[in-house]
This record gives sequence, structure tokens and C-alpha cells, in this order.
Amino acid sequence: MELLDDVRHDRPRVHCITNTVAMNYTANILLAVGAIPSMSIDPSEISDFVSSADALLINLGTLSTERKDSITKAIETANNNHRPWVLDPVFVNRSPQRLKFAREIAKRRPVVIRANADEIRAMADHGTATGEFAHKMNTVIGQTGQPDIVTDGNVETRISNGHALMSRVTALGCATSALTAAFTAVTNNTRAAAVSALLVIGIAGEIAVEFASGPGSLQTGILDALYNLNNDQITQRSRIE
Amino acid sequence: MELLDDVRHDRPRVHCITNTVAMNYTANILLAVGAIPSMSIDPSEISDFVSSADALLINLGTLSTERKDSITKAIETANNNHRPWVLDPVFVNRSPQRLKFAREIAKRRPVVIRANADEIRAMADHGTATGEFAHKMNTVIGQTGQPDIVTDGNVETRISNGHALMSRVTALGCATSALTAAFTAVTNNTRAAAVSALLVIGIAGEIAVEFASGPGSLQTGILDALYNLNNDQITQRSRIE
Amino acid sequence: MELLDDVRHDRPRVHCITNTVAMNYTANILLAVGAIPSMSIDPSEISDFVSSADALLINLGTLSTERKDSITKAIETANNNHRPWVLDPVFVNRSPQRLKFAREIAKRRPVVIRANADEIRAMADHGTATGEFAHKMNTVIGQTGQPDIVTDGNVETRISNGHALMSRVTALGCATSALTAAFTAVTNNTRAAAVSALLVIGIAGEIAVEFASGPGSLQTGILDALYNLNNDQITQRSRIE
Repeated sequence: MELLDDVRHDRPRVHCITNTVAMNYTANILLAVGAIPSMSIDPSEISDFVSSADALLINLGTLSTERKDSITKAIETANNNHRPWVLDPVFVNRSPQRLKFAREIAKRRPVVIRANADEIRAMADHGTATGEFAHKMNTVIGQTGQPDIVTDGNVETRISNGHALMSRVTALGCATSALTAAFTAVTNNTRAAAVSALLVIGIAGEIAVEFASGPGSLQTGILDALYNLNNDQITQRSRIE
Repeated sequence: MELLDDVRHDRPRVHCITNTVAMNYTANILLAVGAIPSMSIDPSEISDFVSSADALLINLGTLSTERKDSITKAIETANNNHRPWVLDPVFVNRSPQRLKFAREIAKRRPVVIRANADEIRAMADHGTATGEFAHKMNTVIGQTGQPDIVTDGNVETRISNGHALMSRVTALGCATSALTAAFTAVTNNTRAAAVSALLVIGIAGEIAVEFASGPGSLQTGILDALYNLNNDQITQRSRIE
Repeated sequence: MELLDDVRHDRPRVHCITNTVAMNYTANILLAVGAIPSMSIDPSEISDFVSSADALLINLGTLSTERKDSITKAIETANNNHRPWVLDPVFVNRSPQRLKFAREIAKRRPVVIRANADEIRAMADHGTATGEFAHKMNTVIGQTGQPDIVTDGNVETRISNGHALMSRVTALGCATSALTAAFTAVTNNTRAAAVSALLVIGIAGEIAVEFASGPGSLQTGILDALYNLNNDQITQRSRIE
């Protein structure tokens, strides 16, 4: 829980290569916890942005040839500078080409892969369980669903927070991946970073649902709840096992 | 009216090639009625997304060479797979090049063209009335304004719902086109699909205006109203002739 | 203050080449005061959009090779048609390449450069004060911060409106630059345009903070406050020196 305080205090820079649907909401989620987002995607300047950032998000939505080039450069820069990076393989279950690219970059040591069950199944070639895949890839998987599952292949944590209405807010999963990247910037314990990020989004969502009239006010309310979230709320509401 | 129930039940996948201004709000409008949006625009994966979708939206905002290539491929895939597609010729009245491209693709059998009066006039070469143009193109035109007009050249429906403040919310017209695509996924009666989509947006807008303090809360409120919209509200409020 | 009334009455067309994070919110800020946004960025149609607009915004966020090409064409079209254009050199302090491009286009007579102190320092080569830089470039600088500073090198105005929570809403600075462009469309007094734009955003932000529960409702509330802003509120709240 103290990781949220650390993010608020340290204000890490998080560079995001993310899809055009999610950019605005992702930046606002990061700002709500005090992180500093940047969003450039041009190959010619990506290294300057990543080398001056504390963590990197790679999200494969609205992928393109230019984005693939930037992603490759960004991961290389992050790895050379020992910066953590998080992979969000959006919709790899809908596009064989995207899946192939996702598998290639997944070999380059993302500290966390954040995805839903369909996407993890596609990444893991369907036969492999989530924990087994995490172990094989030597990474932490943050699989969102009901419940969320965070695993490194040895230890598995289940988080039962959140609310079904959250699935009606676009880009919330993408923004959660960016939040995970922000948390990895303030600790070397990437499993704890993934658990904390999924937990605070789940709790912020639950609180926001109580004040929301539908998905529109929920989208807005999650930003407010995340900004105001305190440790008492986290302690009282967390449903982790 | 039962079409809204069908969308909520069937949860059609709607692939959208739409402008970068409208992407987030369009995805949220689709999610508010239970449809599943996807938004990839890369030529290399567009066919995979369109062939696994139930309907397609082509919106010409923020057009580019790459988008033109994707649009051509997407329409071909939709037509080959007998999937309905909707055309939104944004701002063709401001760019002769875009108008030329819009006219070319309009020949490839969109089931609905959704646009405002200025855009339809540009498409129809100014001399031609809306109904005449619909008849000539063998399509349904959903022309938004005060009132909205839906016509296939034979039957014309006028919808007097909506509110002037809705014109101060960007991308609402674009999102209405995506909603129209969702409705065409659940019926072969494309005229009914267009009428229903324009009607539910108009009514959701009217309801949201009653709770809004301005265009910001209206943008959010329309998502809430659309999510909560029931058949009683539609029956009581619909002003169709 | 009467400039806001002029924008509401004249409804100027503002063409924006802006970053993909800011597009939706920028369009909504412009619509909230009655201006008409367009957002095309393709080199092939940019001249058609700019030549039919009343003012132009050039924002360097999410810059790319294609955007650089469009920006060059857009500025040429604006200058040839005697249309005012505003430069927002986003994050030039993070990317040497972007800084180089920003300095090149800054020579092409933007009527206002709107940026934060870090960005102005990078543009001015660190040794130069803001007023001195404005004088050297023969432009007006609108430097947002606490306070905002508007200067042409001869006269300096300080605006102490606004609220710290506004820094947690992404794209608000970008949208303020677009609003400045809208104000330059209705007067030849570019200093007055920059002062008015920064003042109305600051006051709208203050009003919205009073009703907001956090950055999410603030983002929405600023649009409502801007739409409803009246001259009494401006007179009573303005803190200009």
C-alpha cells in the first residue's frame, strides 16, 4: 500500500507508447497519482523520451509499422538504461500478426505483462497455464478479470476488487497497465508493483461506482477516486488472497 | 425500439476506422449499449479485425494515405464477408481531395451514409436532394440536424429529438455513426437501424441535457443516459414523423 | 473581456495540428466558447483546411515526420492568407530534435508562443529572459505557470488566476493554446488575445475546482464553466497586474 504513497511522492516519469483510443485517459490516470506522462511515438525522438523516463509502457493497440519501429527502439533504450517496462498485448487474440510481434518483444524482458485472460491464452499458445507462462517468460503476469490474478509462476495473488461496470469504460485496462509501469518505477519488487496497481484501480473503481450513474460518470469518477484514495480505504476494501 | 435490446443482448463487434479526435468517445458510446469496439487502422492487420467483426464504420476524419489504404482493404473485407458498413464522410465540404475519395468509396455499397446536411450536399453535388441521392446510391441516408432525416429515397422519416447543446460536444456525430453500424449488425432492415440509432442518441441527449450544467457534463451524461435508456423513455419521448 | 463575447458571436474556425492526447479535449474547449475546430493533419489536405480557417494552432506533441511536413505547409498557407497562428512547443525540453524543429518554425512569425517556463527556457537557450526572447522573436509569449506571464518584450502582464489541481488534467495547456488561437482570430491585438485566453481558462478552472471532487470532474467542469462564463465572473475574479 505504501507504493501508492511512493508514486505520489516520487512523481516518476512514465513514457507510454499506447494506442490512440487510450492516450488521454492513460495520461489522466497517471496524473491522478502524481506520475508524469509523456506519449511521443516517433522513432526519431523516442530514445530521448525513454532515456529521460523512469518507466516505460508498451501497449500494442492501434499498432502500425511506425509504432513497431518505435517500440523496438524504446525497449532497447529502456533495457540499456535499466528502466522497467510493462507490456500490454491488446487484442493479440484478434490479429495473428500482432500476436507474432508481441511474442517477439515479450522475450526482451518486460517486468510485467498486463492483459486479460483471452490475450494471455493467445500469448501462451493456449496449452499453457498463466503461472506456467509467467515462469517460462521469467516475468510477472497481471491478468485482469474476476478476480485479477498476479503471478510470477511461484506465488499467485488473487484480487477480487473492482466492479462489472468498469468493463464498459474504454481504455481502463490500458490505463491500468500504465499505472503498473508507474508502480514499477518506485520498487524493485515487480510482483508487489503489479498487485498494488491492480488493487488501487479495483478499489478506485468500486468507490466510483457508488457515485456513478453509468459508464460516463464512472470514467470521470475513477480519476477522482484515485486522486483521493487513502490508506484507510485501501485497508478496509482490499480483497486479496 | 427492440433493436436497442438486440444490440444489448447480441453485443456485436463493431470495427471502427475513425478519426483520432473521436476514438475514445466512440468506443465509450459503443460500450454503453454493450457493443464491442475495435479501432485498429493499420493496413497489415485491418482484414483480421474486420473479418472477425459484425459491422464496420468508415469515418473520414483525420484522413491520411495510410488510412485510405486501410479503408479500401476494410471495405473489401466487409463486402466479401457480407458484413454491413456505414460511411461517415466528415468534412468532405472542406477538402476536395477527401470528397473525391468519399465519392469513390460510396459506390462500394455502404448500407448507411450518416452525415450532416453540408456534407450530404457536397456528396450529392449540390443539385440533388437527399432522398434522390439515397435512391441513386441505393443506400440509406441518415442526415443529422434539426430534424434528423432518414431516407432510402422512397420512405422518409423525420426525428425531432435531441437538443442544440449536443452540437457543442465534439465527436457526437461520429459516435452516432458507430452506433448506427452497431444497429445494422442486428437487423437486415437498415432503414430501421438508422432510425433507431438516431432516435436513441437524440433521446439520450435530451435526458442528459436535463442533468447537465454545460457541454462537459453533457458529454459524460449521454453515456450514462444511453446505458440506462429503457423502452418507456423511448416510447414517451420519441418525436418521429 | 469583450473578446470572449466576440469569439462566441463570430464563431471562428480554428484549425489545429495538435497531439493525439489533446485532440478531443481541445475540440471540446473550442466548442465550449463557440469556435469551430478542425483537426486534419494529412499533408495532402492541410492547405484546404487552413485556407478556410480563421486561425491556426501548431502544437508539437506526438510529433512525427508526417506532422512536420503538414506543419510546414500549414504555416505557409496561414502566412500567405494572413491568418494568425499560435505555436505550442510541447516538451521541447525533452527532445533535442523537437527543439531544433521548434526553433526553425518559430522564425516564421507565430503571433503567440504559448508554453510553460521549462519549454520557454529551452526555446530561448537558457541565458535569455522571457521578455527578451519575445522581443527578439517579435512575438507575444504566453507563459503559463503561477502566475501566467504574457509579454511582447515591452509590456508584461501577470495573471494569478487558476488552481494547482489544473496541473493534474492532461492537455489543458494544449487546449489553452487552441483557445488563444481562437482569440487571435477576432482581434489584431495579439497581446490582448493571449491575456484574455489565459485569463478565461484560469477563471473557468477556479470556478470548476469549487464544484470538483478531483481531476476527473475538474476536466469536465472546466468545459461547463467556460461555456457559462459571464463578464461579471470575469470582472470579479480577475487577478491581473
